[in-house]
Amino acid sequence: MTSSASDAQTIRAGLVGVTGYTGMELVRLLHGHGTINLVRVTSRAEAGKCLEDIYPFTRGTRYGSLVITEPDADDLAAACDIAFLAVPHGAAMEMAATLHEKGLKVVDLSADFRLRDSDVYEQWYNTDHTRTELLPQAVYGLPELYADEIKKATLIANPGCYPTSVILGLYPALAEKILVPNGIVIDAKSGATGAGRKAAVPTLFCEVQDTFRAYGIGTHRHTPEIEQELSAIAATPLTVSFNPHLLPINRGILATIYTTLQHDMTIDDVQAIYEGTYADKPWVRIMPKGKLPELRHVRGTMYCDIGLVLDKRTHRLIIVSCIDNLCRGASGQALANANLMLGLPVNAGLDLAPLVP
Amino acid sequence: MTSSASDAQTIRAGLVGVTGYTGMELVRLLHGHGTINLVRVTSRAEAGKCLEDIYPFTRGTRYGSLVITEPDADDLAAACDIAFLAVPHGAAMEMAATLHEKGLKVVDLSADFRLRDSDVYEQWYNTDHTRTELLPQAVYGLPELYADEIKKATLIANPGCYPTSVILGLYPALAEKILVPNGIVIDAKSGATGAGRKAAVPTLFCEVQDTFRAYGIGTHRHTPEIEQELSAIAATPLTVSFNPHLLPINRGILATIYTTLQHDMTIDDVQAIYEGTYADKPWVRIMPKGKLPELRHVRGTMYCDIGLVLDKRTHRLIIVSCIDNLCRGASGQALANANLMLGLPVNAGLDLAPLVP
Amino acid sequence: MTSSASDAQTIRAGLVGVTGYTGMELVRLLHGHGTINLVRVTSRAEAGKCLEDIYPFTRGTRYGSLVITEPDADDLAAACDIAFLAVPHGAAMEMAATLHEKGLKVVDLSADFRLRDSDVYEQWYNTDHTRTELLPQAVYGLPELYADEIKKATLIANPGCYPTSVILGLYPALAEKILVPNGIVIDAKSGATGAGRKAAVPTLFCEVQDTFRAYGIGTHRHTPEIEQELSAIAATPLTVSFNPHLLPINRGILATIYTTLQHDMTIDDVQAIYEGTYADKPWVRIMPKGKLPELRHVRGTMYCDIGLVLDKRTHRLIIVSCIDNLCRGASGQALANANLMLGLPVNAGLDLAPLVP
Amino acid sequence: MTSSASDAQTIRAGLVGVTGYTGMELVRLLHGHGTINLVRVTSRAEAGKCLEDIYPFTRGTRYGSLVITEPDADDLAAACDIAFLAVPHGAAMEMAATLHEKGLKVVDLSADFRLRDSDVYEQWYNTDHTRTELLPQAVYGLPELYADEIKKATLIANPGCYPTSVILGLYPALAEKILVPNGIVIDAKSGATGAGRKAAVPTLFCEVQDTFRAYGIGTHRHTPEIEQELSAIAATPLTVSFNPHLLPINRGILATIYTTLQHDMTIDDVQAIYEGTYADKPWVRIMPKGKLPELRHVRGTMYCDIGLVLDKRTHRLIIVSCIDNLCRGASGQALANANLMLGLPVNAGLDLAPLVP
Repeated sequence: MTSSASDAQTIRAGLVGVTGYTGMELVRLLHGHGTINLVRVTSRAEAGKCLEDIYPFTRGTRYGSLVITEPDADDLAAACDIAFLAVPHGAAMEMAATLHEKGLKVVDLSADFRLRDSDVYEQWYNTDHTRTELLPQAVYGLPELYADEIKKATLIANPGCYPTSVILGLYPALAEKILVPNGIVIDAKSGATGAGRKAAVPTLFCEVQDTFRAYGIGTHRHTPEIEQELSAIAATPLTVSFNPHLLPINRGILATIYTTLQHDMTIDDVQAIYEGTYADKPWVRIMPKGKLPELRHVRGTMYCDIGLVLDKRTHRLIIVSCIDNLCRGASGQALANANLMLGLPVNAGLDLAPLVP
Repeated sequence: MTSSASDAQTIRAGLVGVTGYTGMELVRLLHGHGTINLVRVTSRAEAGKCLEDIYPFTRGTRYGSLVITEPDADDLAAACDIAFLAVPHGAAMEMAATLHEKGLKVVDLSADFRLRDSDVYEQWYNTDHTRTELLPQAVYGLPELYADEIKKATLIANPGCYPTSVILGLYPALAEKILVPNGIVIDAKSGATGAGRKAAVPTLFCEVQDTFRAYGIGTHRHTPEIEQELSAIAATPLTVSFNPHLLPINRGILATIYTTLQHDMTIDDVQAIYEGTYADKPWVRIMPKGKLPELRHVRGTMYCDIGLVLDKRTHRLIIVSCIDNLCRGASGQALANANLMLGLPVNAGLDLAPLVP
Repeated sequence: MTSSASDAQTIRAGLVGVTGYTGMELVRLLHGHGTINLVRVTSRAEAGKCLEDIYPFTRGTRYGSLVITEPDADDLAAACDIAFLAVPHGAAMEMAATLHEKGLKVVDLSADFRLRDSDVYEQWYNTDHTRTELLPQAVYGLPELYADEIKKATLIANPGCYPTSVILGLYPALAEKILVPNGIVIDAKSGATGAGRKAAVPTLFCEVQDTFRAYGIGTHRHTPEIEQELSAIAATPLTVSFNPHLLPINRGILATIYTTLQHDMTIDDVQAIYEGTYADKPWVRIMPKGKLPELRHVRGTMYCDIGLVLDKRTHRLIIVSCIDNLCRGASGQALANANLMLGLPVNAGLDLAPLVP
Repeated sequence: MTSSASDAQTIRAGLVGVTGYTGMELVRLLHGHGTINLVRVTSRAEAGKCLEDIYPFTRGTRYGSLVITEPDADDLAAACDIAFLAVPHGAAMEMAATLHEKGLKVVDLSADFRLRDSDVYEQWYNTDHTRTELLPQAVYGLPELYADEIKKATLIANPGCYPTSVILGLYPALAEKILVPNGIVIDAKSGATGAGRKAAVPTLFCEVQDTFRAYGIGTHRHTPEIEQELSAIAATPLTVSFNPHLLPINRGILATIYTTLQHDMTIDDVQAIYEGTYADKPWVRIMPKGKLPELRHVRGTMYCDIGLVLDKRTHRLIIVSCIDNLCRGASGQALANANLMLGLPVNAGLDLAPLVP
């Protein structure tokens, strides 16, 4: 393993769980990375095949002929400097711990190290947390908020897709204490990649196309993650109403966030707070006053576009926050975290223009 | 004109403004109506053509060879017993008044007679109301709430699409006074037919497909209509936060409505109130406890599917209400109102099964 | 069982295999049928539930509370006059034979009785045909061509979706012998309901949305069915190149059929032949000269819309044929066949206007 | 202007016509180009605004604050080394000639210089060709076929989207003379960006979504372009049947090409010819034997994925060719041509991984 990753040499990366949509997205992003080289991709179901056999889009590209292997911690430890875990919660926990023990830097895209309180984890995920000793070391990987901690970390709990959109949308207002902390309502809409790539009737094309539905109203597992992070920002425990919906599109999360202002403010005041907070964070784009963001403008990128409305009739600040759930909400953010851990520029491999239309 | 419309003879109907999506939908629905016969369809732009020339879907059907005419009040009055106005607000006002004076029953699908207070109309629609004398006669055409008045009416203000979904969703809870009347947040999502059939870049396929956006946050013209009707139900003036979004689908509105309960209740109590209120209203379907509605299950029909969630963590009652914006939210409801005005069964021509998938 | 089905009494129908898309569609259509009453719906996986439990769209409708049963031939025979089989090929064969023996009229939506030559069946479907004795009795259920035979039949082989679009598109030209019979190329595009409702990764939303692909080029199982029927019409054996593609929509088949004329003709000649052939077949709509059909104009109906182009540069007659694969291409056609077998008007329950948009 | 473009200095580029989809795509691609810098973008309608005002997706990126100007030849000539013309045919002709005279390298994305015979141009495009003197200098910009000529060119006729997919699909087979040159049928399907960004009812979301249609059967303007290029490759004049269809997706063209082999061959023979022809052309990916391409695997890239089927039953070679119509079929190819003209690596700014899903 490299002792210092910030020099010009190549960093060797492994991806545990390559067949899902977050795995596909990480392969796409690492295609254009100048320093990190993907040397291991694993899948129990597809081991022995080349990446291009299961993902024809990689044919002829840098990683098309990479052979998929069984996930093996010893092999990964010997071959890689850093590992990305794109496997389900529960499954990630032990693999993350083992690779971490063997000295790898680990970015875990699952929920396993996001909740600092293992009781909360066990209650919402209905599974035991068997690696609670690692929780204090795990850093919540939201670069705009925690870049310094991430740079020093060896284990990253990569944020959930919904929490990323919500936390970035609320951070300036909560940090500046302009909101009534409780009573926040989040109405979030996600593309279908958020449901994963498992064969299942409810996510068949003909069950999602030309329709729309809510799901998990008030019970989605991202709720405690959102509350943990917002409470930390607000420096007071708060409870949110988080309510997801399924959009008939592939990528993207748009969260409409309903809040109440502590005191009378103008929209210019609010714009100034948001623009100030994110002045040196180029991935967060505050829309000009009076404009609202759209999902397509962030497609395939790390951008989080935020629109602000002050509704004088109801004394509410309404925040609309858009991200690409696969890139910013998962694999792109994982790569940004890896960049920071490795001493690379945070945007290495991530300076992409949105694909519009 | 018929002296009594409730006998078996045919009712002659005119449709003013046939080229838009609500016009198309009314043609579709009248195709299967046993008593009402469409004898006039008007359009300035397409006069002289047959319906099947502009709508190939009507070719060979009952109305395919109906010739489109210029809108002419005298001709309409001579030829028709009832008129449906599917023209923009402002344009509908005078035509409605004229036809009404000439003795026709009128169902106005525009907003022109929905708001009882013409000042509110003028403020939100930026146009003068020139027929305020008709406002007291106009009946708000929501059959579940106002069937008796509709039966006696000669001028129907057909409800807006968003208001239909919201009012039906909130009616039992507000009528039973179980909610804090203020502070209600409505996050509504509509298919693109709601934006009409006018050539415009923002509603081109490539600007709507594979994306999602909010629009008119806090400023949509359906807001005062919703507030007027909810205030009447609650018997107290209330203000709502109404926030629409544009879905990449053709038809359907799903409104997620965030409310606060006055007192502790169980979900069974709430289900009982909703099921009781709509017990003899077959078009409103209360989902079984724990189930949420989907847009596709109401496609092409008059159904309003309502799901109820009591979120104990935030003490909120969250109501999810689904309709087909073109059928229940416009032309189907117009036909139901016509049926009632004419002494016909309310569901004549409207007893349709949803098209799924 | 009824001795004569043509009287006013209710016909009792059973549907074997209700959970797939063709089952759903038949439930939708029978909702509006005045004579046939659905009394049994079967599914091994869902037995014991009500229809509305698995299809919320049926909630509150005529069949919503119908209880799903295990498929049992004795029970079906006792309870029903006619059975629709919406189960996979192979599985249908024995059930069809058993119910037929017990005296039921049977409409088999599978491929099991479509091919007159069991060797061809076994070669293309890789399964033994165990009920070849029934093949001579089975009538190919395309009402425009075989209404007389269908009326006398007790077992209907309901045509495949692609064959329906292709045969109706080519029938006038082949029957009038204006085409070179060999060398026909069919480029067909189908919505995703054609792939069925089985959980599988290739038909997940995110694998079908925003993309397009060919499949089964030259090898699709509908090829021998198309060739059998076209050869019969042309009175000469012919071979076609049949090539399907998967559209990112739910319903509809559009087949573009490339043919060569035997002799020089004008487009008016060709139009006259098509219009003449289908003059008394209201479900087949020949587009006016110069106009091409679109899938949406047949949505949810029995229409087959046909457009004709004579390309003078290449001496080709190009035929574009559109149907709704679920209605005309499966369940609606099954119902039309049932109507004919039962002495009912062929369009009973099927006089529907297309849902546009 | 630079005397030699192959050194490390920046090349200054102008884009005439920035508001359409090809303009948007070129902005996206130039975002990631290391040598070419976009210094002028023009639009009569939007002059004075910044790019980010009309394309929020560019906000905060390299070109977001670039001010849109009126198209002015003198200004463009003074400011730029190379110009891309993304304006309609007819309009491009004079601007191309003027900028060319002023010494700029010009890549014309319109059809104005594609057809070598101005009579054919005038016949298919119904407009006079006023700059025929430039036709001999214009090079047809398909890099795989004409890289050497492109490198020396000063005026590029950038190929049409459909022709790109068809020519790349047929080139190996025609060059190797394995096909009967006449009788080729091309059934092509395009996403809706191909129809441009003009406000028009037929390309509204609700007119394209959830449907499918053919258009321009036998009469599309890309026909003579395809025939010109294929005839040159085959070294014999040939006529094709070219038939486009409109897909309910944003990007992509899939062409299914039906051909007849001159002599018996195996699929291995054909695969070998195709793989050999494109062995050193990394953007053309021949699918492994038995696999067919999909549109999504080329999304956002220069790839042309080609699948080959030899149908023994009909003695046909069926070629399926996929491209992204906006990138490979327009702006990406324009950039590749610019790279070649400027002495840069052909793939500068174009080494992108497909966005899947």
